This record gives sequence, structure tokens and C-alpha cells, in this order.
Amino acid sequence: MVIKPSSYAVTPADRLDTTFAALADPTRRAILARLASGEASVTELAEPFAMSQPAISKHLKVLERAGLISRGRDAQRRPCRIEARPLAEANGWLEAYRRFWEGSFQRLDALLDELKTQEKKRGHARR
Amino acid sequence: MVIKPSSYAVTPADRLDTTFAALADPTRRAILARLASGEASVTELAEPFAMSQPAISKHLKVLERAGLISRGRDAQRRPCRIEARPLAEANGWLEAYRRFWEGSFQRLDALLDELKTQEKKRGHARR
Repeated sequence: MVIKPSSYAVTPADRLDTTFAALADPTRRAILARLASGEASVTELAEPFAMSQPAISKHLKVLERAGLISRGRDAQRRPCRIEARPLAEANGWLEAYRRFWEGSFQRLDALLDELKTQEKKRGHARR
Repeated sequence: MVIKPSSYAVTPADRLDTTFAALADPTRRAILARLASGEASVTELAEPFAMSQPAISKHLKVLERAGLISRGRDAQRRPCRIEARPLAEANGWLEAYRRFWEGSFQRLDALLDELKTQEKKRGHARR
């Protein structure tokens, strides 16, 4: 694994800005999903999209600047691969809020249970 | 808990776009962090920031449109509170990539262990 310290020198807040901005696009998220199954060249990445190679290249530049992908040195193919660190950092930020969604799902479950019980009671009353 | 189905009617991809875009700003993330400790009015939210209330209101509108906050009906205070669902969805998207960062941290650990072992060997050889 090659670690490039320069790409991690910006502040964590800046990195989160860049990461979240890069993820705020369906094509860029689809590119990452594709790269999750292995390295790919620009040509290979462009195939499933109704998009020109230059358009895909623009998205790749955004992902590369955000440190979400790196590109191989092979001059012809320059294969792209996923870089996990910014994803881990974004996940870390979101994890701090886990108690909120776990709490609200629990409240929703309780609400649904209550509605079911009320429905049953009403069903029995009608008989 | 009040569920507003209309705010969840957009496609999941659209919702992720809006969520990630809303999170790509340090002030908006700081507002969410403040709201994690409880509801707050615009005035209360503006206090710790070197920002006018209209500037904060703009950020609140972005967060509200993204479904990340809701606002109370009290006409005077209109307290803001955190809404967890979009955070849970963003977290869900990122979780699919967990194996990448867990994998790379393991590789990094292995690399550091290897370097330490080499360093020790070199230390012994010098004696």
C-alpha cells in the first residue's frame, strides 16, 4: 500500500467538505460502486453510463481530488481504484449520530406495535 | 414522532445527493452537532458562530430541505431539531464500503508491525 501523506495534510473539516461534496452525485457514487468490485480504466468505467469519456474523466478528477480514488501509473490504462480513508472518515462523522436514528426507529417500531394492538382490539370489538 | 411522507417521496439517489450536499459544509455540520445536544432556536444557533442570523437561516433552509432538521410550530422560536433518517441513509450507503477501510487499516497495521520488526533487527545488528 502506498501512502501519500500530502493528500491527508488538509484539516479534517476540509476533508469532510470535499468528501461529502464528491459523494453528492449519483454518477460518482456509481463509479465508486463499480470500483468496489475491482480496478477499472476510464473506458471500462464509461461503458455502463450514457456519458462521454471526457464527462467521466471530470467525475474521476473530483473523486481523485477528494482522495476517494487513486490512479495507476500504467500510462495507457491508468486504472482507477477505490481509496477507503475518506469513506471511513465520513462514516466516523455519521456514527456520532447513530443514537438518533436508532432511537427514532425504535420509536417507529413502538408506534407500529401500538397501532397493530389497537387494530386487533377494534377487530375483536366488532365481532 | 410526526412522519411527513411527502419529504421521503423523492428517489433514494436524489435523497443521497441532497444529504451529502447538505453535509458538505462545516457550518451545517456544526449546526447538526449543536442540535445533537437538544433543540435550539435560530438565535441560539447563531450565537457560537461569527455569522448573522440571516446567514444561519440560509444554512437551516438547506438542512430543512434535505430533511436533516425539522422546525417546531411555535411561531416565535420555531426551534430546530435533528432528523435522523437522512443520516441513517447516508450511513447505510457508506457501510457498503466498510470492508475497504477495515482492509486498508489491517494492511497499514501489518506494514507498521513489519517496519518495527525490521527496525529491531537493525538495532540488534548494530550492537
